[in-house]
Amino acid sequence: MNASLSPSEARARFRAGSQVPTAGFAAGWTQANLLVLPREHAYDFLLFAQRNPRSCPVLDVTDTGRTSARLFAGDLRTDLPAYRVYRDGELVEQRSEVVELWRDDLVAFLLGCSFTFEAALLEAGVPVRHLERGSNVPMYRTNRECRPAGALSGPLVVSMRPVPADQVATAVRVTSRYPAVHGAPVHVGSPEQLGIDDLAAPDFGEPVEVREGEVPVFWACGVTPQAAVMRSRPSFAIGHAPGHMAVTDARDGEFLVP
Amino acid sequence: MNASLSPSEARARFRAGSQVPTAGFAAGWTQANLLVLPREHAYDFLLFAQRNPRSCPVLDVTDTGRTSARLFAGDLRTDLPAYRVYRDGELVEQRSEVVELWRDDLVAFLLGCSFTFEAALLEAGVPVRHLERGSNVPMYRTNRECRPAGALSGPLVVSMRPVPADQVATAVRVTSRYPAVHGAPVHVGSPEQLGIDDLAAPDFGEPVEVREGEVPVFWACGVTPQAAVMRSRPSFAIGHAPGHMAVTDARDGEFLVP
Repeated sequence: MNASLSPSEARARFRAGSQVPTAGFAAGWTQANLLVLPREHAYDFLLFAQRNPRSCPVLDVTDTGRTSARLFAGDLRTDLPAYRVYRDGELVEQRSEVVELWRDDLVAFLLGCSFTFEAALLEAGVPVRHLERGSNVPMYRTNRECRPAGALSGPLVVSMRPVPADQVATAVRVTSRYPAVHGAPVHVGSPEQLGIDDLAAPDFGEPVEVREGEVPVFWACGVTPQAAVMRSRPSFAIGHAPGHMAVTDARDGEFLVP
Repeated sequence: MNASLSPSEARARFRAGSQVPTAGFAAGWTQANLLVLPREHAYDFLLFAQRNPRSCPVLDVTDTGRTSARLFAGDLRTDLPAYRVYRDGELVEQRSEVVELWRDDLVAFLLGCSFTFEAALLEAGVPVRHLERGSNVPMYRTNRECRPAGALSGPLVVSMRPVPADQVATAVRVTSRYPAVHGAPVHVGSPEQLGIDDLAAPDFGEPVEVREGEVPVFWACGVTPQAAVMRSRPSFAIGHAPGHMAVTDARDGEFLVP
């Protein structure tokens, strides 16, 4: 079972070449978004994250040039299932490892991922449609601007989960307790106010049905940094492929506030 | 009454030259630690803060060269009661303004201060000795190292408040709810385990009595960044004088987690 793998076992499988989404792997262990930038852009990004903590909650940062982190004992160049490579803000390649692209001046940022609070939603009896379907969560660029930092700017990206109207309050309460992994929703209902015209056409991931009596609930999303890369065009960047996360050595429970 | 001043009124008073500790000013408005560094050291410090969030909770960061911040509408060069100036890690001067020392390459960091949770302690019935005495809180360098970042390293600095044994749990619970202003204690009792030989001889601030039946409780302290400056010796730095804080335009309640 994928769920019973340890983080190092899951990483070994991805290192061996398995390019699958990480949902359901290594249950209880925290998964993270990855963004890798040259050191010259690292301050702007760390400041961008400080100014936009809902979408960019920093869990760990490597020392410059290092390929592992305190929360990630594996090799960041090989141990995610899939990577996206950006040059001057253009997505140029998706690949299973980035060994020969790695440079001594790179800094890797690990950012909280909503997979952590999805387990808590399920435990609280709140259904999570995309998990039921076995698909990737739908994600949308919004008309809300992040607070810029230096040369970095970009739109807020959100993920959407349909929640039955009588469970919206529970979903808010449960996810509020995980501020390090996006926390409470940024918006409940009214997708048009976020500039989302068609829920069936997400910018990333796959669409899910919103049924009668359900409300679309929107959380800040860890793809926001990659949207900032596309807008701001640093010379070079690497991200995870959406849904293909870094499986860390941290426990989900570490990010639960009392 | 100092307590009823607005943030801008308090800042105007300090700008006019009043060099007094800010405890008791502008009740309900958040006070902050200040650290100002040249841009070349700013990434190391922001990473140091990310890695040591208990002692260095970042509330706001200026754009490079700017003298105000989103949370601080005043002038950071003049609106604190007193500043400390460091050159190559040596404290060279304490002064009431730093106008002529300001440079276009400076970045100012505002960090959470335990004054915010002291009001909550009082409301919960936990006495705060140094407030009763009208003195500055006692602060100590410890034998615990912060996680280093780039060229920055230093010891954890803690503040100490004596708490009656039957109220320690309340003090922990109340301050846990303010993670952005140092949060829960890092240590309860046993000062010798922190390398503190004599509670009556603090490294910063003024000593307070620990009475029979009271336990010394230690919180991470916002003077930690200045201890890192003294150890790591960046070419130039400015901090607030301990206890002489930046009175911000944020409300204490904004930093209370649900």
